[in-house]
Amino acid sequence: MAKKLWGGRFRKELEKSAEEYLQSIEVDKEMVLEDVWGSEAHAVMLCKQGIIADRDLKEILYWLEKVKRDFQKGKFKLSKEAEDVHMNVEGVLIREAGKEYGGKLHTARSRNDQVITDARLYIRRQILDIEELVIQLQKTFLDIGRKHLETPMPGYTHTQDAQPITLAYWATAYVSLLMRDLSRLENAYGIVDTNPLGSCALAGTSFPIDRRLTTKLLGFSGLHKHSLDAISSRDFIAETLCALAINMSNLSKLAEEMVYWSTFEFNLITLDDRYTAGSSIMPQKKNPCVAELTRGRTGAVYGSLMQLLTTLKAIPMGYNRDLQEDKPPLWNAIKTVKSTLYVVNGMIGTIKFHEERMEELAGANFTTATEIANYLVIEKKVPFRKSHEIVGNLVATLVEEGKSFKDFDTVDRVLKMSGIGISFNDLRDIIDSKKAVQAYKSEGSTSPKEVAAMIGEFEESIRRHEKGIKQRRERIEGAKRLTESVVKSVLSGKKIKSIDM
Amino acid sequence: MAKKLWGGRFRKELEKSAEEYLQSIEVDKEMVLEDVWGSEAHAVMLCKQGIIADRDLKEILYWLEKVKRDFQKGKFKLSKEAEDVHMNVEGVLIREAGKEYGGKLHTARSRNDQVITDARLYIRRQILDIEELVIQLQKTFLDIGRKHLETPMPGYTHTQDAQPITLAYWATAYVSLLMRDLSRLENAYGIVDTNPLGSCALAGTSFPIDRRLTTKLLGFSGLHKHSLDAISSRDFIAETLCALAINMSNLSKLAEEMVYWSTFEFNLITLDDRYTAGSSIMPQKKNPCVAELTRGRTGAVYGSLMQLLTTLKAIPMGYNRDLQEDKPPLWNAIKTVKSTLYVVNGMIGTIKFHEERMEELAGANFTTATEIANYLVIEKKVPFRKSHEIVGNLVATLVEEGKSFKDFDTVDRVLKMSGIGISFNDLRDIIDSKKAVQAYKSEGSTSPKEVAAMIGEFEESIRRHEKGIKQRRERIEGAKRLTESVVKSVLSGKKIKSIDM
Amino acid sequence: MAKKLWGGRFRKELEKSAEEYLQSIEVDKEMVLEDVWGSEAHAVMLCKQGIIADRDLKEILYWLEKVKRDFQKGKFKLSKEAEDVHMNVEGVLIREAGKEYGGKLHTARSRNDQVITDARLYIRRQILDIEELVIQLQKTFLDIGRKHLETPMPGYTHTQDAQPITLAYWATAYVSLLMRDLSRLENAYGIVDTNPLGSCALAGTSFPIDRRLTTKLLGFSGLHKHSLDAISSRDFIAETLCALAINMSNLSKLAEEMVYWSTFEFNLITLDDRYTAGSSIMPQKKNPCVAELTRGRTGAVYGSLMQLLTTLKAIPMGYNRDLQEDKPPLWNAIKTVKSTLYVVNGMIGTIKFHEERMEELAGANFTTATEIANYLVIEKKVPFRKSHEIVGNLVATLVEEGKSFKDFDTVDRVLKMSGIGISFNDLRDIIDSKKAVQAYKSEGSTSPKEVAAMIGEFEESIRRHEKGIKQRRERIEGAKRLTESVVKSVLSGKKIKSIDM
Amino acid sequence: MAKKLWGGRFRKELEKSAEEYLQSIEVDKEMVLEDVWGSEAHAVMLCKQGIIADRDLKEILYWLEKVKRDFQKGKFKLSKEAEDVHMNVEGVLIREAGKEYGGKLHTARSRNDQVITDARLYIRRQILDIEELVIQLQKTFLDIGRKHLETPMPGYTHTQDAQPITLAYWATAYVSLLMRDLSRLENAYGIVDTNPLGSCALAGTSFPIDRRLTTKLLGFSGLHKHSLDAISSRDFIAETLCALAINMSNLSKLAEEMVYWSTFEFNLITLDDRYTAGSSIMPQKKNPCVAELTRGRTGAVYGSLMQLLTTLKAIPMGYNRDLQEDKPPLWNAIKTVKSTLYVVNGMIGTIKFHEERMEELAGANFTTATEIANYLVIEKKVPFRKSHEIVGNLVATLVEEGKSFKDFDTVDRVLKMSGIGISFNDLRDIIDSKKAVQAYKSEGSTSPKEVAAMIGEFEESIRRHEKGIKQRRERIEGAKRLTESVVKSVLSGKKIKSIDM
Repeated sequence: MAKKLWGGRFRKELEKSAEEYLQSIEVDKEMVLEDVWGSEAHAVMLCKQGIIADRDLKEILYWLEKVKRDFQKGKFKLSKEAEDVHMNVEGVLIREAGKEYGGKLHTARSRNDQVITDARLYIRRQILDIEELVIQLQKTFLDIGRKHLETPMPGYTHTQDAQPITLAYWATAYVSLLMRDLSRLENAYGIVDTNPLGSCALAGTSFPIDRRLTTKLLGFSGLHKHSLDAISSRDFIAETLCALAINMSNLSKLAEEMVYWSTFEFNLITLDDRYTAGSSIMPQKKNPCVAELTRGRTGAVYGSLMQLLTTLKAIPMGYNRDLQEDKPPLWNAIKTVKSTLYVVNGMIGTIKFHEERMEELAGANFTTATEIANYLVIEKKVPFRKSHEIVGNLVATLVEEGKSFKDFDTVDRVLKMSGIGISFNDLRDIIDSKKAVQAYKSEGSTSPKEVAAMIGEFEESIRRHEKGIKQRRERIEGAKRLTESVVKSVLSGKKIKSIDM
Repeated sequence: MAKKLWGGRFRKELEKSAEEYLQSIEVDKEMVLEDVWGSEAHAVMLCKQGIIADRDLKEILYWLEKVKRDFQKGKFKLSKEAEDVHMNVEGVLIREAGKEYGGKLHTARSRNDQVITDARLYIRRQILDIEELVIQLQKTFLDIGRKHLETPMPGYTHTQDAQPITLAYWATAYVSLLMRDLSRLENAYGIVDTNPLGSCALAGTSFPIDRRLTTKLLGFSGLHKHSLDAISSRDFIAETLCALAINMSNLSKLAEEMVYWSTFEFNLITLDDRYTAGSSIMPQKKNPCVAELTRGRTGAVYGSLMQLLTTLKAIPMGYNRDLQEDKPPLWNAIKTVKSTLYVVNGMIGTIKFHEERMEELAGANFTTATEIANYLVIEKKVPFRKSHEIVGNLVATLVEEGKSFKDFDTVDRVLKMSGIGISFNDLRDIIDSKKAVQAYKSEGSTSPKEVAAMIGEFEESIRRHEKGIKQRRERIEGAKRLTESVVKSVLSGKKIKSIDM
Repeated sequence: MAKKLWGGRFRKELEKSAEEYLQSIEVDKEMVLEDVWGSEAHAVMLCKQGIIADRDLKEILYWLEKVKRDFQKGKFKLSKEAEDVHMNVEGVLIREAGKEYGGKLHTARSRNDQVITDARLYIRRQILDIEELVIQLQKTFLDIGRKHLETPMPGYTHTQDAQPITLAYWATAYVSLLMRDLSRLENAYGIVDTNPLGSCALAGTSFPIDRRLTTKLLGFSGLHKHSLDAISSRDFIAETLCALAINMSNLSKLAEEMVYWSTFEFNLITLDDRYTAGSSIMPQKKNPCVAELTRGRTGAVYGSLMQLLTTLKAIPMGYNRDLQEDKPPLWNAIKTVKSTLYVVNGMIGTIKFHEERMEELAGANFTTATEIANYLVIEKKVPFRKSHEIVGNLVATLVEEGKSFKDFDTVDRVLKMSGIGISFNDLRDIIDSKKAVQAYKSEGSTSPKEVAAMIGEFEESIRRHEKGIKQRRERIEGAKRLTESVVKSVLSGKKIKSIDM
Repeated sequence: MAKKLWGGRFRKELEKSAEEYLQSIEVDKEMVLEDVWGSEAHAVMLCKQGIIADRDLKEILYWLEKVKRDFQKGKFKLSKEAEDVHMNVEGVLIREAGKEYGGKLHTARSRNDQVITDARLYIRRQILDIEELVIQLQKTFLDIGRKHLETPMPGYTHTQDAQPITLAYWATAYVSLLMRDLSRLENAYGIVDTNPLGSCALAGTSFPIDRRLTTKLLGFSGLHKHSLDAISSRDFIAETLCALAINMSNLSKLAEEMVYWSTFEFNLITLDDRYTAGSSIMPQKKNPCVAELTRGRTGAVYGSLMQLLTTLKAIPMGYNRDLQEDKPPLWNAIKTVKSTLYVVNGMIGTIKFHEERMEELAGANFTTATEIANYLVIEKKVPFRKSHEIVGNLVATLVEEGKSFKDFDTVDRVLKMSGIGISFNDLRDIIDSKKAVQAYKSEGSTSPKEVAAMIGEFEESIRRHEKGIKQRRERIEGAKRLTESVVKSVLSGKKIKSIDM
């Protein structure tokens, strides 16, 4: 066990189990490139501000680039003894360039601001990936919508057949819902995308640093100014986890429907073999395992949110080591949500819808009762509450007699008891589920016209989101290119004063 | 037990315990005025669209106004037998105006869209209240900041003395943090403030309703268009709960500090008698009970969030009765957060800060070690990592010898062993906490200049938020006045065609 | 606002909002009788130990009995200003008997030990109630089991038809599962049922109290000896909440099945009208609302557990005011679980099972595939993994051709391709679901013989539990009678020395 | 990608991302030895019952032993393509021994019963390890207790100095608290330690298996009889997680105290260098990082519990793939709790207690006020509530005048105003914290005599627990030896009939 870089004040070294307990390599290994980028930006700024010399900078950047290349080749392994990614990287510099040079990188910086700089760079990228996966799933639903504008299916409430709707209407409901997930992810992005670097331990620094410059080099859209708040707060992680937890709750809704719709009993869909699995004992089984795991892994993301909130409870202002536990739940949630969105998209895109069965159920089990009640209101001038009662009683009688709305004679007989006459043709038209969905008029309803209009609006909305994602990606890539070009200039021997940035 | 308004299809009445299990009066009683408003807007729209007659509308509005007045006088009590607020209100109409008139109100409407219309109207108002309470607390912190720009105090990390900061810096950190709570509340407001009315059961309706008109009469800033999504989704509640949970986690941070700072051992503050309580057995006790309960009640809001997320897990699209359980956790969280913000604001505003003790601790326990290290970097050209080690070792030696940085001779002796010379005057200046906080230069640091600048920015930001709140309140009040004037016109006998809206 | 009983050390009174924030009347009002009982036991013990005089005791008991009677008549209302139940009750004594007498009750006692004494007395009773409700539900399932030992139904895994089972087997699975809920409740009871009274504030007392005597008078089965642990710990509440959360998760499993089984598509059961509800707009709807709310309210109990765990996190040893928040979540969970168990029992007891449909599904969708595979193993000596593959392929072919196991020719043709011959009679017998369930042999399997045996064991186990509940109830009632008889003797003028206890 | 062992019924192979989504290798790799043991027991039983032949058994056992040895040498790597540990192990048999032999292992077994058999074997062992770690920590506290029976320290409530206690009293409070953690772990063990093997998919089997024999070979203390319940239920995992979550909440209490006690301001203890860490920027820092992470990782265990409970919500009876998500949270919680208990034990065992400071604080800040109040009750016959008020007022006056109980003149003057006289000697004795702790008399109080007695009882209780652990370990080891000896006999060519078991 090597002497720790912070070890000057200590007379004994960390107990082995404590060292293991404190290290965060498993999580940190995801952020090596971010740590290098952040360090390069910091070093460049230090030199630009005259805090370290050109010679210092060149040495530091040389070895940081080396770490980057090694990592990309899979040759840079993080050591648990060095505790975290920061000390691992700085360790290379000190080992290779000596304290003389490498020992200057950490001037006017603390791990407290460094770790959240790295994390923010990392999370920024993850949120963009997730937004794109959400959009991909929306597009898959829009495809279904466009194909099935007039395909009737049963609309459910309380998992009971309620009213006929169209398959397009069902599919676009998820597009609508996921749109708000996009908004939440964007909001989270906005809070993540501010620069804490330069906050140092908690109070800022007496070195004349330039936080605007690192903000630019790292492509942040703004400065997280108040340094004590910056190093103490993890609401940017909590908010991201909230967005993911709600997204997962929405996907669990979809998963539940896939599980039930693919039962022998519902039989509304067949899931593709590629997204189902068999049983080790029962040869006939084809189980909706992807959907079930989506449902089950909702717990993982909820649990991650609860984990972080618990950790944050009653932690005083200022960095506390508890905060190291901010990343495991977020990393875990990100991984779960990304893999889920990806696989769910594949599952939805390969569903075989049973249109015939859908149409059968759309018209079965008295789903058009509301339309009959509305008919009484419009044509027979019965107040709605009364017509509701009449039709309710009609259904109860039909159920008792084992009949349906198609039994005109019974319907006619029962309605007559309430003094209502109805013609055979009228009844036939009302209970036709295809006509029923055409009859809807209200904005945002299941009528093909309305759904087609919504599809157009959703497409437009997706285009806006995609544009926003593209702009954010470009800002990041631009900053990365800027940093790289500065690094290249320095390594080629240019003086910092002569480099534009 | 009266026959239910939905009871036509049923041959037996609800078992008593089931009726009790299903009712939601405790929560619904908060939304009576919202239910009336929503019903008035709906009825006006129905008439405007020719779905009900002028005479129907007049009867309906008359009795809705009666319910409103009775409720405001405390005379309208909700009955559990009627299940919920909607059936209670509609029940009055049917009882008083008869099914002939009252029975027409529910045309082209379902409780599915009605309940979330009511809830959104209610939550909208609550969020605005909470935003104002957050701002009030920010202002209290800004007052402290303005008074204590130069008051040194110890800055803590790991609850250990870290570096000298100012009291203003500490106070403004909370202002900065709470600013993001405001953003989250605003985002939540945006998702809450869309109109689901007209979605009916799940599919929209075949009546020619006008959803834009109810949107206007209820002051919503937009239409929640997709009807199936509208009646199925509760992400607007989940997002609000997320914002509240994070806010509460921030307040728990503050509460923890209040508990510890007011101990005999820390002794940084005295909490006012009015926000503390005694012991039934120990006569001397003065306990920080308000702060402790703030910390403890964080659990109530976290638990509410977890409650809702659990309820939402794997519920299929379409209204499901599970969703009735969306309001108890949110109501509970709102009540907890509002009372907490109010009482915490009082507690913070009446704190007596012990400036002398703060200054003492600001300079004690080696808090200026970083400044000594920085001094070695700047004046003695020692690389930071090396200077860190030298000062670390210096502190270890002083601790072992029971000394402090004020013991110039020892400091001098130890530094000399690393080949460093330091003058008495230099050391004295470095370890002076008042000078230390002045020496900070970085943007967003604890230096009085920086904190003063941030205070200005925070004030500006608060003004912007206050303006936004005012505009939102005005939109709501405007819509309320519009509805009221339409109601008045109708009750005075005007035809709907002749009323502008 | 009256001067608080603990107010000697304070110069200002509680701010109104703080007073409201601190009070716990809503929760405490459930424990008035427990508070009186605990106080009577304490006072009797104080007198027995010579700490207060006979005259003091008589006055104290007189007024405590008065409180009890008033409360039972609904005439004792708790005031929020008095903060909690303890101060409300002591307040009566001081007001009525004067500090001279009433002021002696709180000798050698603190609210810290008093509140958990009250809570334990209260929870003890609630756990017993819940155990009885669980047993009632088990008995309802056993009734179903006894009636349907041979009724075939489809057994599901992954919500897909898996193998034929019997209705009795399904029903007894819940009996088996609920048995472990009983164990958890009993374990929790054991931890709840220890006496903390006499721990005082945290350190015990210098008064010569007798904690064994109050243990006896309050019917506790043991002493919670370590006083600091006693007043600091809330694991007895956490463990109770854990037992309730797991119980609720089990009930949510049942509720999910009820929701799906009662769909038109599954059609396995009809829920009784008395446990379902209608729609305000769709006249035909009969919704499984009780089952849905059971599923949804699972969130309330999970949330309560998370609430308490959050509150307990990182609270130092010693009473902290945060702990006041232990009761709201538990009370809420108890209320939810009790009402749910009661109403679910009614719902299950009134289900109409569709035996014909069950039998149809038990044999449909290739549920007997495993039996065919087993047949190949036994009769045709095919290794299981190979026979699994053969039958799997058989099913795939039948699905593609739209056929079932009943199509002997196809089955025969496909099996022949794997070199397997099967006779028509063998196949017919294997795929007969009634014969299939008879064929199971393993202990604990779905065979009628095994299920009948398990029913016998469950009945025996329930008898044991009922006996245990009875014994615990008798201990409580015995202690209550003892306390009452002592109180009566004192009030009738007897000296404490002369009273046996 | 190889054809799955369950793939007969499928025409397409799993999509790559779905395969990745479904696999559980990360978690399963911990249970390889358990899977082998379970399979050996199962195979032996099959042969004993005549379901497979001696020759089959020998082949199966040969390759299972090979897997075991390979795994122990680190040469057996699980492949994700094979989905889980079961298919990986069975895959070896089929590859090496051919379907002819290897294909017979899975006769009368399903992964549904297999996976929970493995999990129970694994968890059993983990619980025993955790119980031992808890006991180790208790012993460390008992050591502190024995050494510090008379060391005074301040007892805190509301984090405010309350009454003098002893260090032994504080230390033993944790012993007392942890004792209930042991009980919970034992209860969980009891529920875990029942044998589900032989439940097969859900219904048992028509093969004549002997579940009692596998119960014996695997050392389970009982049979989980009802097969449908056995494969559906995860309450054994939920209960284990509950026990761990409560344990972690207790450790977070301790961690919070360590963090605060080691501040410069409290200064009650010094944590050993080996359990603390430094800052990358502030050279003087020595942070209580182990304690902070213990506090922070409480979130990980709470989150794990919430994860599982969420996953279990509303899953129907029967195995559902969601249940695969039962192990990640439990594994994670086990790992967290084990490492925490281990490192916390080291941290506590190396604390340096500052006895002088403890004594100073034990007597400071009016901690003996209750004793003065009690003195007035006993010696001056003042009713407690009145004496409380008198002493409260005394403290308020002393605070205002900046004085303490040691200022006899002031104390005397103020008490006289209430008509109370007190002698200098009496006052001196009362406010002496060492005398105060001696004066406590009640059972379970902080008096050295009481604490010494409790230490004796705790030691006895620990011995009982250790004995219980030993017996459970012996049962497991005995069963393992039995299985191994049977395996050895079979491999050496013995017929199954001739082997005793």
